[in-house]
Amino acid sequence: MDGETKSLESIIDNNLSSHDLEEFNRIYYGRKNHHEVPLKDTSIAAAKESDFEIAAYAFPAKKEHTRPPRIVKVGVIQHSIAIPTDRPVNEQKNAIFAKVKKIIDVAGQEGVNIICFQELWNMPFAFCTREKQPWCEFAESAEEGPTTRFLRELAIKYSMVIVSSILERDEKHADILWNTAVVISDSGNVIGKQRKNHIPRVGDFNESNYYMEGNTGHPVFATRYGKIAVNICFGRHHVLNWMMFGQNGAEIVFNPSATIAAEAGSEYMWNIEARNAAITNCYYTAAINRVGYEEFPNEFTSADGKPAHKDIGLFYGSSYFTAPDGVRCPGLSRNKDGLLISVMDLNLNRQIRDRRCYYMTQRLDMYVKSLSRVLELDYKPQVVHENDKCKEKE
Amino acid sequence: MDGETKSLESIIDNNLSSHDLEEFNRIYYGRKNHHEVPLKDTSIAAAKESDFEIAAYAFPAKKEHTRPPRIVKVGVIQHSIAIPTDRPVNEQKNAIFAKVKKIIDVAGQEGVNIICFQELWNMPFAFCTREKQPWCEFAESAEEGPTTRFLRELAIKYSMVIVSSILERDEKHADILWNTAVVISDSGNVIGKQRKNHIPRVGDFNESNYYMEGNTGHPVFATRYGKIAVNICFGRHHVLNWMMFGQNGAEIVFNPSATIAAEAGSEYMWNIEARNAAITNCYYTAAINRVGYEEFPNEFTSADGKPAHKDIGLFYGSSYFTAPDGVRCPGLSRNKDGLLISVMDLNLNRQIRDRRCYYMTQRLDMYVKSLSRVLELDYKPQVVHENDKCKEKE
Repeated sequence: MDGETKSLESIIDNNLSSHDLEEFNRIYYGRKNHHEVPLKDTSIAAAKESDFEIAAYAFPAKKEHTRPPRIVKVGVIQHSIAIPTDRPVNEQKNAIFAKVKKIIDVAGQEGVNIICFQELWNMPFAFCTREKQPWCEFAESAEEGPTTRFLRELAIKYSMVIVSSILERDEKHADILWNTAVVISDSGNVIGKQRKNHIPRVGDFNESNYYMEGNTGHPVFATRYGKIAVNICFGRHHVLNWMMFGQNGAEIVFNPSATIAAEAGSEYMWNIEARNAAITNCYYTAAINRVGYEEFPNEFTSADGKPAHKDIGLFYGSSYFTAPDGVRCPGLSRNKDGLLISVMDLNLNRQIRDRRCYYMTQRLDMYVKSLSRVLELDYKPQVVHENDKCKEKE
Repeated sequence: MDGETKSLESIIDNNLSSHDLEEFNRIYYGRKNHHEVPLKDTSIAAAKESDFEIAAYAFPAKKEHTRPPRIVKVGVIQHSIAIPTDRPVNEQKNAIFAKVKKIIDVAGQEGVNIICFQELWNMPFAFCTREKQPWCEFAESAEEGPTTRFLRELAIKYSMVIVSSILERDEKHADILWNTAVVISDSGNVIGKQRKNHIPRVGDFNESNYYMEGNTGHPVFATRYGKIAVNICFGRHHVLNWMMFGQNGAEIVFNPSATIAAEAGSEYMWNIEARNAAITNCYYTAAINRVGYEEFPNEFTSADGKPAHKDIGLFYGSSYFTAPDGVRCPGLSRNKDGLLISVMDLNLNRQIRDRRCYYMTQRLDMYVKSLSRVLELDYKPQVVHENDKCKEKE
């Protein structure tokens, strides 16, 4: 990955200084100062040894009269796969476990309360191939599979809530597959799961060949540290998906993703969508993307008129947090494993809602009526023609 | 306005070059090259003489087999007020007319087909004062008022559709006020109007003291050059407002705004919201903000614990366009009047919809049901507790 740009952040930090840098930061991130949080020496050393990036930023809130601060330490991990995709499935999975465990250990030592990984973190993103085997064999039970069992121990050890996006095998329903985020509590129990609500059919993302739209609604998980929800990958393009988590009381919404930088890719939208969701819903969001190139054994085409090839292009990382006021922190790099920590005061959500009144002014009754009409087969859009007006005048 | 940062764009252009600049442009704007469109020498000279900025960018689409390209030239104008706010109302209004006419003339000579101004472009943004007089006297009939009459002539002269955001006096309904965008066709007729759907109650934006939530729904205006709609100012925070214009078939949605850079202001969200709307709804958006400082005769407070003062802070301009794929052009400056032109192929909307399938995958039926439930007084949010799960297991 030499020659790849490290990040927009690094371009800025290498070229701007003093007033220009402050002004860029104010206009782009929403604050001149990033509120960096110091890390333990042991964490920095461990990150260096295992070659991953680590950074932490705070999102403070104002002191209130009637509530104490509600400080939560939230982590996200982005990472590449660990060994080639032609190796046996369980070997690939275990190699990722071993690699990511080192990062989780550092998060644990930093006192992270809630952590979330990228989409389908325990496997390569093989849907570009449209091959069913061996990729479907990565699927496992959300409640009792090896990934949940692996994480359960770490959740207990570090009193950490863990959000784990996996390919789920639904053995109770004819063995079908789902794209599912499993939420494991700090005591090691599976609190519940979110199945991906919106499934892409675009370019290399042939996911509807593997699993269907989720049937779990928009659950919010009341964890010991706060109310969280999971908007999986493609759902970030759907504003109603984000909205329903807000209506159900989510304080932090994670967006575990797998998305690429290739031509017509999503990279320039990455700073927009999870951030817009934080603004309009007045909650914290975390956008997490995988890292690196993944080469597959057999060649495939990408429905773009180009020759067949064996890899999907760069997963550009760049994971970041946004606060409910829309202020964001610098992201992790585009091409390296990393742990990003945010020290957030959840009181900020209500403070921003009181200030901006977006929920109070949302006119949901009007939209329920309008959207119901849109669903009618003979829907007549509200279109005004100049001739309508002329006729009216005559 | 000396000492003010000109724009994020100028910071970047002054400090970055070669590969770094290309990479920044790719990640931030969505393309390495801005597709600048040449302007007439006479336009550049007129802009210089009248001290306003002018720029033009293209958003091309792919050639299709069955449809010819649908190229439309769209302009937006940002400007400051023209004379002090203690002058007689009609004098203030006429001074703005005279100033903006010079910019419209240049747009006309450039062959602009559709143009939109900032919110309440013909008056100062006086709602910070909470005084009713003389500010309510700026209100006028949408159909027959002096502003519509002034623009009608220019619309005919330049065969130009004009979107004009004004304070409307509704004489047929007990003289009440509305915040209204009037759409004037290229033949000078008023096609229709959009009343502001979401009214702010925050800081200096005491607008609900003057007018209520609009009652015109989400009309799309079928003009000679394309289907357009208007999401007025605060409505940009409301994703359902943007969405309904898309459902009704809008190809371009204008967001005439008046918003400030002050502490806790909106500036860092300006690149996010209109752009997210373009992405999720797969249509073009134009975000337009006023420019400059506006000082009022009497002092007022801003509900922020600070002493009374006479101005609301900098309106930071920065107007810009976004294409339906989320690519944006550089914005106008933060502190200068300007005309920004976009040469857009409207075929791009459907091309992006076919590619990304956001409408096809939106699951509107699910959300209509979910949002209907949210409206119930005894709504029970979908919240999962760890204990629920434990009980289930026992």
